[in-house]
Amino acid sequence: MRNIKLIIEYDGTNYFGWQKQPNQRTIQETIENSIKKITKEDIDIFGSGRTDRGVHARGQVANFFTNARIPEDKIKDAINSVLPGDIVISHSEEVDEAFHSRYSAKGKEYRYIFFNRRIPSPLLRNYAYHIPQKLHFDLMEKSLADFIGTHDFKSFMASGSSVKDTIRTINNASLNKNHEIIELKINGNGFLYNMVRIIAGTLVDIGIGKISRNDIPQIIASKDRKKAGHTAPPHGLYLENVFY
Amino acid sequence: MRNIKLIIEYDGTNYFGWQKQPNQRTIQETIENSIKKITKEDIDIFGSGRTDRGVHARGQVANFFTNARIPEDKIKDAINSVLPGDIVISHSEEVDEAFHSRYSAKGKEYRYIFFNRRIPSPLLRNYAYHIPQKLHFDLMEKSLADFIGTHDFKSFMASGSSVKDTIRTINNASLNKNHEIIELKINGNGFLYNMVRIIAGTLVDIGIGKISRNDIPQIIASKDRKKAGHTAPPHGLYLENVFY
Repeated sequence: MRNIKLIIEYDGTNYFGWQKQPNQRTIQETIENSIKKITKEDIDIFGSGRTDRGVHARGQVANFFTNARIPEDKIKDAINSVLPGDIVISHSEEVDEAFHSRYSAKGKEYRYIFFNRRIPSPLLRNYAYHIPQKLHFDLMEKSLADFIGTHDFKSFMASGSSVKDTIRTINNASLNKNHEIIELKINGNGFLYNMVRIIAGTLVDIGIGKISRNDIPQIIASKDRKKAGHTAPPHGLYLENVFY
Repeated sequence: MRNIKLIIEYDGTNYFGWQKQPNQRTIQETIENSIKKITKEDIDIFGSGRTDRGVHARGQVANFFTNARIPEDKIKDAINSVLPGDIVISHSEEVDEAFHSRYSAKGKEYRYIFFNRRIPSPLLRNYAYHIPQKLHFDLMEKSLADFIGTHDFKSFMASGSSVKDTIRTINNASLNKNHEIIELKINGNGFLYNMVRIIAGTLVDIGIGKISRNDIPQIIASKDRKKAGHTAPPHGLYLENVFY
């Protein structure tokens, strides 16, 4: 069978996240149903990882096996022709049969968008986290250095998560400010459940003076979720890239 | 009575435009109902002009008369507290009783956003006009000079519009390209019905080679709507500012 890799963009606003579940509209099921229409096969797709309800993607990756003989780059057009407008396949190619979107992944890049103005934005209400308070951008930016590198990020994992190995490497993290928009880009070999959202929330807590930027090393060392900042909401989060 | 000026931002996606009409959800009526809840008065609001279904605003202006004694800058917070999230009052102030959002306006600025990539964007599907073809940006940009100045813009008015005086002055027009996003900013003393959308569509027709950039002076001189390009869709259009 052919193994097909897809790169997927979506607006997560109207979905209960990536992962298939009974009686809910999910990204995974919507794409599977579209592929079934095209190939007439009962396929499953494997995503690089789940995204929560409301989270967006500009570079989610998934793969599936098929006997359909559509040329590899036309597969995206065929699927797009039956997908709703808030999910788009931006790339399709045939890959080695050993390729698995999740297990072959070497890293991921996320983006988190903040909107910093007293009054919220109607146009960004589903696409950025509204922070009405004044933010000390310099402190937020300086604190990024303490996140970069290999650490046990247990303090930055949603409590209740069952993952045992909580050591992860963050290769890069940057903040950019353009008028009222602040963008966090973060790139690592893997992320724990809610890790980017808890880092984003902690940066906000630093920016408003609720957490000192000097405390990050201690917060990491504590391995205690309660020491880190709040979990930023899902609608500011974008899965940008999965690296292989 | 106090005359209150509002600056309004909205996501026009889920509305039948600005103007009140029976059995449709409109921006104007939604704001009026919110003000009525706050003031307990049967007020009307006067907008600087209509926006069509799907058109957005970051600087629409409206005014209304009230006896309510809320401090001028608190009025926006009070109205926002009862408005849905896709409409936000960004500014409120008390103005001279002679001020009228429409008749006092000296000019307006619009923005039109194009998304230029073969594959559409799920995140921008309601916020930018998707152009899959390759665009000759330089030709589009050079053509702007022919629009600037005082002209009879009858060729760029929706056919069927009843306006008699079709002479308008465009003070400024610029195009900016940032990766796949192209932004048109256009500023004038007034705009005919659909004028910005017809200019935007004509720029696309120039960019794809359907209209020659050298033909703009003749198209303007013809005063014939059929000579200009197509009408770009409403969801790429933003009312940015109204000048007084």
